[in-house]
Amino acid sequence: MHITELIEKKRDGLSHTGEEINFIINGVVDGSIADYQLTAWMMAVCCRGMNDEETADLTLAMMHSGDIVDLSELIGIKVDKHSTGGVGDTTTLIAAPLVAACGGTVAKMSGRGLAHSGGTLDKLESVPGVCVEQSLFDFKRIVNKIGLCIVGQSENLDPADKRMYALRDVSGTVPSIPLIASSIMSKKLAAGADAIVLDVKTGRGAFMSTVEEAECLAQSMVSIGAHLGKRTAAIITDMNRPLGMAVGNGLEMREAIQALCGMLPLDDPLLKVCFALAEKMLVLSDIAGSDAEAESMLVRAIEDGSGYRKLKEMLVEMGGDSVYLDNPDMLVRVQEIIPVYRADKGYISHIDAKNIGIAAQLLGAGRERAEDSIDPAVGILMKKRFGEFVDAGEAFAYMYVNDRANLKEARSKLIDSIKLSDSRPEQPPLIYKIIE
Amino acid sequence: MHITELIEKKRDGLSHTGEEINFIINGVVDGSIADYQLTAWMMAVCCRGMNDEETADLTLAMMHSGDIVDLSELIGIKVDKHSTGGVGDTTTLIAAPLVAACGGTVAKMSGRGLAHSGGTLDKLESVPGVCVEQSLFDFKRIVNKIGLCIVGQSENLDPADKRMYALRDVSGTVPSIPLIASSIMSKKLAAGADAIVLDVKTGRGAFMSTVEEAECLAQSMVSIGAHLGKRTAAIITDMNRPLGMAVGNGLEMREAIQALCGMLPLDDPLLKVCFALAEKMLVLSDIAGSDAEAESMLVRAIEDGSGYRKLKEMLVEMGGDSVYLDNPDMLVRVQEIIPVYRADKGYISHIDAKNIGIAAQLLGAGRERAEDSIDPAVGILMKKRFGEFVDAGEAFAYMYVNDRANLKEARSKLIDSIKLSDSRPEQPPLIYKIIE
Repeated sequence: MHITELIEKKRDGLSHTGEEINFIINGVVDGSIADYQLTAWMMAVCCRGMNDEETADLTLAMMHSGDIVDLSELIGIKVDKHSTGGVGDTTTLIAAPLVAACGGTVAKMSGRGLAHSGGTLDKLESVPGVCVEQSLFDFKRIVNKIGLCIVGQSENLDPADKRMYALRDVSGTVPSIPLIASSIMSKKLAAGADAIVLDVKTGRGAFMSTVEEAECLAQSMVSIGAHLGKRTAAIITDMNRPLGMAVGNGLEMREAIQALCGMLPLDDPLLKVCFALAEKMLVLSDIAGSDAEAESMLVRAIEDGSGYRKLKEMLVEMGGDSVYLDNPDMLVRVQEIIPVYRADKGYISHIDAKNIGIAAQLLGAGRERAEDSIDPAVGILMKKRFGEFVDAGEAFAYMYVNDRANLKEARSKLIDSIKLSDSRPEQPPLIYKIIE
Repeated sequence: MHITELIEKKRDGLSHTGEEINFIINGVVDGSIADYQLTAWMMAVCCRGMNDEETADLTLAMMHSGDIVDLSELIGIKVDKHSTGGVGDTTTLIAAPLVAACGGTVAKMSGRGLAHSGGTLDKLESVPGVCVEQSLFDFKRIVNKIGLCIVGQSENLDPADKRMYALRDVSGTVPSIPLIASSIMSKKLAAGADAIVLDVKTGRGAFMSTVEEAECLAQSMVSIGAHLGKRTAAIITDMNRPLGMAVGNGLEMREAIQALCGMLPLDDPLLKVCFALAEKMLVLSDIAGSDAEAESMLVRAIEDGSGYRKLKEMLVEMGGDSVYLDNPDMLVRVQEIIPVYRADKGYISHIDAKNIGIAAQLLGAGRERAEDSIDPAVGILMKKRFGEFVDAGEAFAYMYVNDRANLKEARSKLIDSIKLSDSRPEQPPLIYKIIE
């Protein structure tokens, strides 16, 4: 087999055999396929697509390209969740402890944030002392003890994905459903999950800007799961506006703690999405018989504080200082909290979640390159939601600031990120569809 | 402008502006675009295509990526010809001297052969002493004196094409009409041609395997020429069988000399294609008013030996030893001439030109990599043409051999390259179409 022949085959719209996919992924890992060949092939995949079998073969090959985490010694069904990435998305920090509090087993490997999109590891590290690099032994020990652990990916997990992911961003080959689906699912499967619940974001601020695209991606990932005998469900949720009010690592950790302590109403959008995800996690784990049963378990885990305790126990096991968890305002101590307002007034008829993410990034909450450092305390706290009325000169958001270098640019990004109208806009759906 | 945005634009099937094309080609030349970005973009072009304006913009940008040869001081219309590459294609060595003998000005930069496809420079160098690397001064001097000179491309001609061409071969991005058309036309235009006649080969042994593809490519190149104000015509010719009987550098030079000396009948396929090309060259040069007038001039240039004298004068100016030109059998002096025959008999109903090219390459006539050396004397001389009867054990070809290393493989390639049938096959057309 020659890689150029395989590139030509995909370029001409033909399907790859399992052997051909294995040949390609082996070449990705051992370096026999050059970067310029890999990007040409990925672009051919972007343009010509892949059928379900090819996508499943690709996922399997990528999954086996490195270490497979063996969680078989852990009791129960190991359930994982994954979000396709959004702004102000704290769902993992809320849903995972709640599921653990209800008796689920959440053994999760997570990633860092890039650009305007936050990463769970960065949010965990906003608590001083927390170490997200745990040995496999400690990872399992914590899961066994608490039913919950969220750590960084082990070094040699899915090396094929690492190489492909790094090249896709710089070669215009990101938005391909087979490439996205296999990238997500291969990592989840290599990390040892038995059941997977996917949160597929759609709208401005998400990779999949239309519901149709998001549905295709969700369908593809659920098919891969089914093909490989893993329980999989996907929830398509809205990312036209930020899900929570906080954007920034410490701010989001505080918001998660507040949510787990019952400080948010049950119909809060963030909590509603967390519940939808956690319900599916409990059902796929055979802990709840139905979504409704799962829901009442989750409400209880908030009311009795057991969800909050799970998060705290986990973070303390990982080295976190519990003082910050008992006093979450300490997570967001900054030099200045600056209100942001507009000269006009009206109902918020549009929120550009991506621009809010970029504003937070400008303040130091996110990184442009993987090696950049971030400030855990800074970010944006929204005070007004989509559909709410904002008066002229009334603060609709606050900037948490330690470094004024990009303050002006961040402020203007924020001001431009909302649109005001004279009439109250209709609320778009929060959850579009559940695919299982 | 960011290269990833431009890659994404082409991936999504949109058209580039002239500015965008210039940005890309500048990045190809100054190295700011990485190989893996360039191949991703070229694959997007393969899959999504380009419109006429984009292709013309691309050609223009590539043409201006390096030196432009200024031939304006030479008198008359400078006419060039280009073949898309074939096996046993000696047309340049015959058509160019004939055009010069009729009063045309042929100032041509040519390439080397790669794989099974021969290159004009290698054929010129089969004459001992010939140096194809001439200074621009000497190139113009020889053209001025004789009306004809064929040399290697100057070092800094079309550097964008050099980089793209090298990557296309190894990234599965060869068969894209806009990429092929711009590659050919940008070099011809940078080399200073006023008028261009293109020989677009179709069939097995050619890049464009169907007449329709060849027509698309021809149409695209003629459009580029029209767009840039250059007289351009294209002839679509058959490459299902080798054009001449000789495959190998010295063998092809000898065949060209024989043709120019009137030793081939006027209806010989090689001569017919040479005439079609030379006629167009003379008409585009305003030397002949019609194809018919051009034809009678060309017949005269063979009958009076003036075409042969032009070739000889040029080669002697370039350092060639005239003894070899007066005694062309000296060009093919080898240790062994080995007949090739088959056990069965019948009419030749199929000739695989590519396999004959590969057999010649195996004997040392062609190179696998650009740095390989070649043996000018070795190759294949066909004794039977398509449609002719071959008896069992009768030689249908001879191998000219100096090194027996790959003899067996070459023989079996040759034997497999023809098919015999009981009935005489119909002759396919030699010239499919003329586009101007």
